[in-house]
Amino acid sequence: MKWGAAPDKDRTMSKKWHLPHDRFFDTDPTQKKAALEIYERVKDLPIVSPHGHVDPALFADESTGFGSPADLLIIPDHYVFRLFYSQGLPLEQFGIPRKDGRSDLVEQDHRKIWQRFAENFKLLLGTASYAWLAYEFKEVLGIKEVLDGDNAQAVYDELDQKLKSDAFQPRALFKRMNIEVLCTTDGASDSLQHHQKINASGWDGKVLPTFRPDAATNLLTPNIKGEIEKLAEAAKVDITDYRSYIRALENRRAFFKEMGAVSTDQGVLSPATYPLSEGEINRIFTSALKGTVSEKDAEAFNGQILLEMARMSCEDGLVMQLHPGVLRNHNELIYNTFGADKGCDIPIQTEFTRNLRPLLNQFGNNPNFRLCLFTLDEYTYSRELAPLAGHYPAIRLGPPWWFNDSWNGMTRFFDSVTETTGLYNLSGFIDDTRAFPSIPARHDVWRRVVSNWLGKMAVRSFISMEDAHDLAHMLVYTQPKKVYNL
Amino acid sequence: MKWGAAPDKDRTMSKKWHLPHDRFFDTDPTQKKAALEIYERVKDLPIVSPHGHVDPALFADESTGFGSPADLLIIPDHYVFRLFYSQGLPLEQFGIPRKDGRSDLVEQDHRKIWQRFAENFKLLLGTASYAWLAYEFKEVLGIKEVLDGDNAQAVYDELDQKLKSDAFQPRALFKRMNIEVLCTTDGASDSLQHHQKINASGWDGKVLPTFRPDAATNLLTPNIKGEIEKLAEAAKVDITDYRSYIRALENRRAFFKEMGAVSTDQGVLSPATYPLSEGEINRIFTSALKGTVSEKDAEAFNGQILLEMARMSCEDGLVMQLHPGVLRNHNELIYNTFGADKGCDIPIQTEFTRNLRPLLNQFGNNPNFRLCLFTLDEYTYSRELAPLAGHYPAIRLGPPWWFNDSWNGMTRFFDSVTETTGLYNLSGFIDDTRAFPSIPARHDVWRRVVSNWLGKMAVRSFISMEDAHDLAHMLVYTQPKKVYNL
Amino acid sequence: MKWGAAPDKDRTMSKKWHLPHDRFFDTDPTQKKAALEIYERVKDLPIVSPHGHVDPALFADESTGFGSPADLLIIPDHYVFRLFYSQGLPLEQFGIPRKDGRSDLVEQDHRKIWQRFAENFKLLLGTASYAWLAYEFKEVLGIKEVLDGDNAQAVYDELDQKLKSDAFQPRALFKRMNIEVLCTTDGASDSLQHHQKINASGWDGKVLPTFRPDAATNLLTPNIKGEIEKLAEAAKVDITDYRSYIRALENRRAFFKEMGAVSTDQGVLSPATYPLSEGEINRIFTSALKGTVSEKDAEAFNGQILLEMARMSCEDGLVMQLHPGVLRNHNELIYNTFGADKGCDIPIQTEFTRNLRPLLNQFGNNPNFRLCLFTLDEYTYSRELAPLAGHYPAIRLGPPWWFNDSWNGMTRFFDSVTETTGLYNLSGFIDDTRAFPSIPARHDVWRRVVSNWLGKMAVRSFISMEDAHDLAHMLVYTQPKKVYNL
Repeated sequence: MKWGAAPDKDRTMSKKWHLPHDRFFDTDPTQKKAALEIYERVKDLPIVSPHGHVDPALFADESTGFGSPADLLIIPDHYVFRLFYSQGLPLEQFGIPRKDGRSDLVEQDHRKIWQRFAENFKLLLGTASYAWLAYEFKEVLGIKEVLDGDNAQAVYDELDQKLKSDAFQPRALFKRMNIEVLCTTDGASDSLQHHQKINASGWDGKVLPTFRPDAATNLLTPNIKGEIEKLAEAAKVDITDYRSYIRALENRRAFFKEMGAVSTDQGVLSPATYPLSEGEINRIFTSALKGTVSEKDAEAFNGQILLEMARMSCEDGLVMQLHPGVLRNHNELIYNTFGADKGCDIPIQTEFTRNLRPLLNQFGNNPNFRLCLFTLDEYTYSRELAPLAGHYPAIRLGPPWWFNDSWNGMTRFFDSVTETTGLYNLSGFIDDTRAFPSIPARHDVWRRVVSNWLGKMAVRSFISMEDAHDLAHMLVYTQPKKVYNL
Repeated sequence: MKWGAAPDKDRTMSKKWHLPHDRFFDTDPTQKKAALEIYERVKDLPIVSPHGHVDPALFADESTGFGSPADLLIIPDHYVFRLFYSQGLPLEQFGIPRKDGRSDLVEQDHRKIWQRFAENFKLLLGTASYAWLAYEFKEVLGIKEVLDGDNAQAVYDELDQKLKSDAFQPRALFKRMNIEVLCTTDGASDSLQHHQKINASGWDGKVLPTFRPDAATNLLTPNIKGEIEKLAEAAKVDITDYRSYIRALENRRAFFKEMGAVSTDQGVLSPATYPLSEGEINRIFTSALKGTVSEKDAEAFNGQILLEMARMSCEDGLVMQLHPGVLRNHNELIYNTFGADKGCDIPIQTEFTRNLRPLLNQFGNNPNFRLCLFTLDEYTYSRELAPLAGHYPAIRLGPPWWFNDSWNGMTRFFDSVTETTGLYNLSGFIDDTRAFPSIPARHDVWRRVVSNWLGKMAVRSFISMEDAHDLAHMLVYTQPKKVYNL
Repeated sequence: MKWGAAPDKDRTMSKKWHLPHDRFFDTDPTQKKAALEIYERVKDLPIVSPHGHVDPALFADESTGFGSPADLLIIPDHYVFRLFYSQGLPLEQFGIPRKDGRSDLVEQDHRKIWQRFAENFKLLLGTASYAWLAYEFKEVLGIKEVLDGDNAQAVYDELDQKLKSDAFQPRALFKRMNIEVLCTTDGASDSLQHHQKINASGWDGKVLPTFRPDAATNLLTPNIKGEIEKLAEAAKVDITDYRSYIRALENRRAFFKEMGAVSTDQGVLSPATYPLSEGEINRIFTSALKGTVSEKDAEAFNGQILLEMARMSCEDGLVMQLHPGVLRNHNELIYNTFGADKGCDIPIQTEFTRNLRPLLNQFGNNPNFRLCLFTLDEYTYSRELAPLAGHYPAIRLGPPWWFNDSWNGMTRFFDSVTETTGLYNLSGFIDDTRAFPSIPARHDVWRRVVSNWLGKMAVRSFISMEDAHDLAHMLVYTQPKKVYNL
């Protein structure tokens, strides 16, 4: 281990972060000039974040900080530690807590975790996470040197100091990051106590909840019976059958809306939306109340719930977000040891044209309905998503998400969908992150991609520079506010 | 409404179309120079259009013009109005006629339609349609300003005037566009009266029919019984069973060939080509004659018909075109209100390797057979289509079509198929359009893509500039003539 | 035929190969400079070839040469002759031997074969094969002029001469190509006599076998019973049931390992890995011993064998290579006339997420297991392969293969997988070729793509130039050695 005593000589050899103002843009001078000109006008716009997973508790109580540098950047971020795991480094060495609570098997020393992170930092080279972390270190946290095994402890010291200072408390960072609105993601039975605290505190940061009912609607959830009971309690509805269950969901939506929610979100394996007969629904729901549902029935029920949620959106105006196509917890060993969200969710092929047809035929022409579609299967962009969004008034296409939230991922998205669906059928950016300090880094990549892509369109005379400026402003700022009614 | 009185001041502020000679090409100077050099030699070649949907009636009778500007550019073009619909603008406002004929519910004032089109024109920014319309306005119709809400009525006046003049009659435009041959698409029972009139008129424009039997071969066609009766009548064959039905189709192919047809065309949901037993065929066909066929039987029958059509092509030499993979009329409300071809056809995943195997094993090695394959599922390019075309002598790959007929769509096509299948296995361009004035715009995009892509190959020394010139000439002019025996 | 007497005048007009040092790189000067700088440091590194199909007999006996120019470049290379076939040129004209041995139906005159090859050489323009052949002609074989119908016989003469000289014997070329290690592909029952001869000869070229058991594990192999008997004989194991069959495979793996093998390889239609019950296994295997297995049973058995092979890899440390997704011998006429590997293998859609789950759950976390995944379905890159490799420690992604082994194919690969899985989860290059002289050509394309792609990353400040140099060295040299334990 080198970190015991970082020698001066090595320290002076550490590289500085090189994040020039014109980074990421294509290097052709004509195009880069246009990109920079566009970027200049959108780079400082306030951040609108209509979908993400930041913990609202961070802002509820001024005494809660970010914890240690490892708490801030490593332990909660599966985007990062999955890559170390893929190279043979056990998750225990990065402090990922075990389900069984056995802390003797998990590294507890955050300095050691940090050292391992630093020594293996180069394994992230070329990934989106590397680009975000570079921004976070330099721009958000004020660290000048590229992290490596030699400067690891010095950087830890510097960060640790900062994270205890007033300037690096969550609310202060929220303001410094210029966040206009941040939407969180909250379970259907959530009391939204943190949101209530924020409201009560008089702090003027806008942090809004989002209604995510998955735990109570995916009948394969472990202890689904308990989840439905929690829902009943939260909604103060006695759930005895499907109708009362639906009423409970409606009640909760109303509560979320009262608390400022503008949208709902559902993460589903398949976006199939085939309606069930009343008899089928009741049979399946009754078996769920007993705690025993087959995989097939759960899938069918899911299709029915998507239809119900769409109907409710038509009625209460909450935007419906759909994130389909992820096979969660692919690696059973990891899931059994560490639980969910540990980097082993793997996408599957996703079909939209046939699967969404029943839903779109019922609600897709309804002027009060808005459906934001996301996918991890980019091989549906030009074939299905762009043609669907280029026809149905209800649909807006969410930006590339998760594994596709990256420079090339976004560029492929624009290249593949725009010529068919135009730019006004996109929703703008969502960061979808639980890593709070990565928010400005992610939005900056979006702004740069947008500027680079529109600049390229302009210098090739597909559009004028004037149009490019307007479209960039729309894609960065006005469109997410408009699409999400913010 | 602003269009009542377009104020002078706003008028002077309208932007001019900016369509520089080097538009669309990559901006790197080395590459652009090569692209321009190649483009220079192919840009003025005559237009060969082996597949499209222009109405032959336009050229049959000199007294038929294009109608109003809205008749020319909006009402028949679902590529365009679907995008307005996707942004919440009702089709009625664009004059799209209803199936029930209720004109009181549909905008009849073409000036108002035009105004709405103009005010929302920017919604098309970034789409292929925007690029085509820019060309049509400036190069085909001689309109200098970018259409907007302020100049809408002045542009309407100017266009309306022009469309009444001799220079803007269909035959005159046909010649001015330098069209060498234009193939239309015609039903199996069509009398081809317009083609006959054109021939009889002594006009030397070459307008050829294409045999498209879908209405009589897709057993799910509404009133399929009536369609088969029409076929019987047209072919003067008493259709009593499958064999006489096939004889009728053969008769009609012979008639089309006599009338100058060089190819057939089929739009099918699936390219599956599994042969049926004689018993199965007769059972399904008999039920069709009674007007009741299941979806599954219709699909099976479709596979049988594809095999029959391939056999006939081997015999009569008509090129077989296959356009699979579109789920037609996805939006039932739109279909029920306005009918087919209203912008709500959505592609589905398409499989070629297994589905075409029976057909290719029977006919794919036949030197008299030529099969032009199209797809809206570009995610088959490198995996299936390029390897198939790189082996079977019968196959040529049609260009990117419909939603993929665009700058990026074409570029991805060349990038994905060429290294595997070469350039001689491509068919060249088809415009597939019912929007007559868009023909030169679409062919110009193809010529520019070809020049840009080959130029890029040349400056990176994959091929020589001499080869690039030859290949461009082939892809623009000689190849479609060769592939379609024109 | 022009080749009887090549006129001087035409000869002087033949073009010279133009393969400038900076070929293939993007032309933007900033980027090209970076690419060249990176390429300069990796271009001369020794060739590491962990997977391919070169015949080891070439190096076993010094008296065996390459034969005629047609033997060297045409007759064994289905990458090349399939493209001539796709343009209507019969395989017989290129000397491809028939299964029935009828040499009267096949061109025997290698000069005539060569002439046809030369006259149609331009049909390859734009393909990966064209780029490789250009390199082979100029750099490996010292032919200065681009092959055409006019210089064909002169080039034949020159090549024929050279191929008889010492400098162009296989071992000499092996050394001149700077091959550090070349792995062949060998059947489970193979005696490895050529490898033994090489070892015994004292020649210091490193040629290692690879264990490919497909003929004995794919129960649809014609005469599978005979194949299993050959396996039994080779392993000296009396195969009476599944267990003894597995023991025989284990014995052969041990023998291959003794002979220097570092990996196994399996070419399968589907990568499905669902375990079978003991009863199912025995039932299927017993029917195989009788020589009658259904397609469905064979597929199920294949899934079981993949699991067994993974288990064995955990035990003996041989790297497991998986090449799924090819429908072999799609064209029955060609297969029946000429046999396998004649250019009519066509890829199919391939699914990894669900199919590999059982295997990965059993072995994917095992530190002794390494699985190199390949695909011809690039439409799984970002959706499945990159997320899988970005999590499971056992997985490394093989490079684009076969139809995707090309400039654009590789570039799309890097663009699609890197941001999700990083660069350390890639395996480096494999050439997979049976065309020995194409090896340096193929590796050179990889080195150029790597340099161009990393250069582009560096000039856009995603990574530093220092990192780019390190990563290029890794991707070209150290990584394949590390991944394959070479």
